[in-house]
Amino acid sequence: MKIADIKTFLGGYFDSVELAGADDIEITGPAKIEEAVAGQVSFVSNEKYYRHIATTGASLVIVHHKAPLDDAAPGVSFLKVSDPYTAFVFLLKQFSASRRVAAPGIAASASVALSASFGRNVSIGEHAVVGERCVIGDDTVIGPNTVLLDDVTVGSGCILYPLVTCYDGTVIGDRVIIHSGTVIGADGFGFAPQKDGSYIKIPQMGTVQIEDDVEIGANTTIDRATMGSTVIEKGVKLDNLVQVAHNCRIGADTVIAAQSGVSGSVKIGRQCLIGGQVGFAGHLEIADRTSVAAKAGISKSFTQPGQAIRGVPAQLMRDQLRQEAQVRGLGEMKSKIDELEKRLQELQTSIGR
Amino acid sequence: MKIADIKTFLGGYFDSVELAGADDIEITGPAKIEEAVAGQVSFVSNEKYYRHIATTGASLVIVHHKAPLDDAAPGVSFLKVSDPYTAFVFLLKQFSASRRVAAPGIAASASVALSASFGRNVSIGEHAVVGERCVIGDDTVIGPNTVLLDDVTVGSGCILYPLVTCYDGTVIGDRVIIHSGTVIGADGFGFAPQKDGSYIKIPQMGTVQIEDDVEIGANTTIDRATMGSTVIEKGVKLDNLVQVAHNCRIGADTVIAAQSGVSGSVKIGRQCLIGGQVGFAGHLEIADRTSVAAKAGISKSFTQPGQAIRGVPAQLMRDQLRQEAQVRGLGEMKSKIDELEKRLQELQTSIGR
Amino acid sequence: MKIADIKTFLGGYFDSVELAGADDIEITGPAKIEEAVAGQVSFVSNEKYYRHIATTGASLVIVHHKAPLDDAAPGVSFLKVSDPYTAFVFLLKQFSASRRVAAPGIAASASVALSASFGRNVSIGEHAVVGERCVIGDDTVIGPNTVLLDDVTVGSGCILYPLVTCYDGTVIGDRVIIHSGTVIGADGFGFAPQKDGSYIKIPQMGTVQIEDDVEIGANTTIDRATMGSTVIEKGVKLDNLVQVAHNCRIGADTVIAAQSGVSGSVKIGRQCLIGGQVGFAGHLEIADRTSVAAKAGISKSFTQPGQAIRGVPAQLMRDQLRQEAQVRGLGEMKSKIDELEKRLQELQTSIGR
Repeated sequence: MKIADIKTFLGGYFDSVELAGADDIEITGPAKIEEAVAGQVSFVSNEKYYRHIATTGASLVIVHHKAPLDDAAPGVSFLKVSDPYTAFVFLLKQFSASRRVAAPGIAASASVALSASFGRNVSIGEHAVVGERCVIGDDTVIGPNTVLLDDVTVGSGCILYPLVTCYDGTVIGDRVIIHSGTVIGADGFGFAPQKDGSYIKIPQMGTVQIEDDVEIGANTTIDRATMGSTVIEKGVKLDNLVQVAHNCRIGADTVIAAQSGVSGSVKIGRQCLIGGQVGFAGHLEIADRTSVAAKAGISKSFTQPGQAIRGVPAQLMRDQLRQEAQVRGLGEMKSKIDELEKRLQELQTSIGR
Repeated sequence: MKIADIKTFLGGYFDSVELAGADDIEITGPAKIEEAVAGQVSFVSNEKYYRHIATTGASLVIVHHKAPLDDAAPGVSFLKVSDPYTAFVFLLKQFSASRRVAAPGIAASASVALSASFGRNVSIGEHAVVGERCVIGDDTVIGPNTVLLDDVTVGSGCILYPLVTCYDGTVIGDRVIIHSGTVIGADGFGFAPQKDGSYIKIPQMGTVQIEDDVEIGANTTIDRATMGSTVIEKGVKLDNLVQVAHNCRIGADTVIAAQSGVSGSVKIGRQCLIGGQVGFAGHLEIADRTSVAAKAGISKSFTQPGQAIRGVPAQLMRDQLRQEAQVRGLGEMKSKIDELEKRLQELQTSIGR
Repeated sequence: MKIADIKTFLGGYFDSVELAGADDIEITGPAKIEEAVAGQVSFVSNEKYYRHIATTGASLVIVHHKAPLDDAAPGVSFLKVSDPYTAFVFLLKQFSASRRVAAPGIAASASVALSASFGRNVSIGEHAVVGERCVIGDDTVIGPNTVLLDDVTVGSGCILYPLVTCYDGTVIGDRVIIHSGTVIGADGFGFAPQKDGSYIKIPQMGTVQIEDDVEIGANTTIDRATMGSTVIEKGVKLDNLVQVAHNCRIGADTVIAAQSGVSGSVKIGRQCLIGGQVGFAGHLEIADRTSVAAKAGISKSFTQPGQAIRGVPAQLMRDQLRQEAQVRGLGEMKSKIDELEKRLQELQTSIGR
């Protein structure tokens, strides 16, 4: 792919793509700006890294229109766009070889129910299991050894990697990616306590609904609802080892980092950013665009949109940071008290009381 | 199922079932009290929700004998019992279609050792693997792609969902449910440090024993003992993504929420309630009926039964809550100290010392 | 195995092995010192447990050269070595029956690409999947239902337990053990935010490299790099349910306990000891031989080797312990302030100001 081709390609996404330098050099792949060598393309987005413009070994660097190129390394070409980071991501996609998760068609070793139905260009991997009445959309790939129990619906353009489990009745939208080991639709954790201290299981009769453009990491668990649906809205991104309990709703375009857990019936708004190892108590409501620092433990609802929270129990970021500073200042506070006591003692002594 | 039939059904569980209203209406399924429509059954247990009695669209509501029905919505029938929540759970079971995890019999694609033995009415799913000398009890279902290594014993009436792994020698009681992705009997995390900083593996020669009526969530891990057994006693309920390390014993009817971890050789008593994302240091003893708040980190034993603990490091609930209040009061404390200093200064100045 | 044989066997590892007692007794297996019975071998390493020497029912006890044997139980033989714990581990290996994960050879039900290549004495389990151009070394065992996508390289003497997933391009060294449910090489969690609040996926084009003698627990996840490699260096031990994000490097012989998570691009040094449920923020550097207490949340780099850290946010162990003591002392501090206020008030009153 020559630089001229890349300029054309990016022109499909950006109103203005300006070239500085030669356009006939062949670009063979992407690399980090500090590791790139001749023939590679890289990018600089953050001003902090502008210094690399002078030293990079790349043949092509994607930069912002405003990036200073006066000290640019000789022989390097530049393509200027309004969002170099996103432009580079588009290029990465161009250069990334598509990964083969399963061969086209239905593997002879797969176990597919006769009542299952398939769109065009579906791939079902080796030893995969597709239950009764499952519906699989066009261009979807079901990885080897993945199991769909009965009545699972998967939209078009999805990838379910190997060893995923979807329990019966799971509904998955279009362009959804689910990584290996993830379990969708297992029973919610519901038991009715009995007088003798034992429990009886509460049947989990609901299901899980995953909307379009969701990506779910590896070994994550999303439980089915007791009644109704656990819902993962459009565009949500869940990392690895995340737990979503029964009857939760995760709002569109919300991102949850690894090992976080959401207890039953929690409603999280849209476009939230949840750090890693965060925990939510049950039945809470979290407003849109809330950001939650890693390791927070949320024990009450935060209903005003756009807040940042942190800590255990979680509070507003500024309150939590002030509190953490106060705790770090405890030694000083103790010294001050000791000093006051001493001064008071001296005063009492000096005036004879 | 007519209301009269439901009255008879509940009569099998409760000494007294009283009807108020018509008994000949057909009930087609359960629903939440605030969402129920004509033909559905719901329940009210907590007094907080008595207000729904006046407004529900359900045709039948299960309530306590003492529930006030004077303002009940017109045309609604009521069945009065001593425990409406449990009664509703029994009804849920009646209405829940049984889930098909594997077809009856042994799937042709399953790999079953000749030395394995089976009770009556066993289902072994597609591509499941059953190792040498395994014993599977009556009415047990082994899900597709689940793997039992050699010498695994599974009791009767169990369900192992798809993609479960049981390492060699695992012993599972009756009526045990294990959800997908769970790994039973992997090696405990034991290594002997060597002088050069490397480690040699300590062979994990023990096994895992899971008693009757246990339910284990998805993607949970229970490691085998170094010697002897890791034991999950009767009636224990483990949520998703829980870690139980080698040589632990979890007491009967104890409940552990998602993403909690129990380090090696910990003994947890009976009927404990453990919140999510809790961690236990190794070799501790936790008394019966201890309740542990979510996110706690337990670093010492709590040997008196029935205590509530919380925090990192965990302490008695009341001590921890007092401590949290004190930390929240740090700003006030600092103001008080500043005020004292000022008053002392003024006093010193005023008396010329 | 007679005691004389055990003496000879340990002589292969230790310069000096001294016998006290009879050498012709048959030893049938190992046991804990307090549970051992006639015919069994046990060990005492820690001085705390020397008291068991007088009461053990074992026929043979491995002890340190300096252990006091004057009060030893009658009829017990002793073998004295410089490191009784490690000696016992070697003995455990002798007594542990080797676990059969898959039968020798390639199972007929496995799906193996024609372009895959195998060393000598390889075992591929039932329904396992081996992708195009995979290379499997001598004496390696691939468990049932485990999936290797294309271009995976596994060294010699490895065990991949059932239901492991290795994504395309994963490189695994020699003598590596990977427990069930673990996912190697899933996509790193990288998304570029767009102006409308949605995200586009950043292709994860790198891979994962696991060096020799690594052991990885069950249901752990190690993500592939965005570009380059996520690297798990020689001798690392990862417990169950651990998360290692894209582009991390975990230094040789570092040990990470269960449910800990390492965010993207973190570099952890060699011979570190990381407790359970620890979290690392992204892009940090942790020096060699750092030890991290369980549940810590590390938000900055610790670049001086050999430090102990603890807390959220993590700080040096001594600072954190002092801070925790100060927080526990808050009640006392408050009493002191109240007392000072009272004394000051009395003083003011008494001198009429």
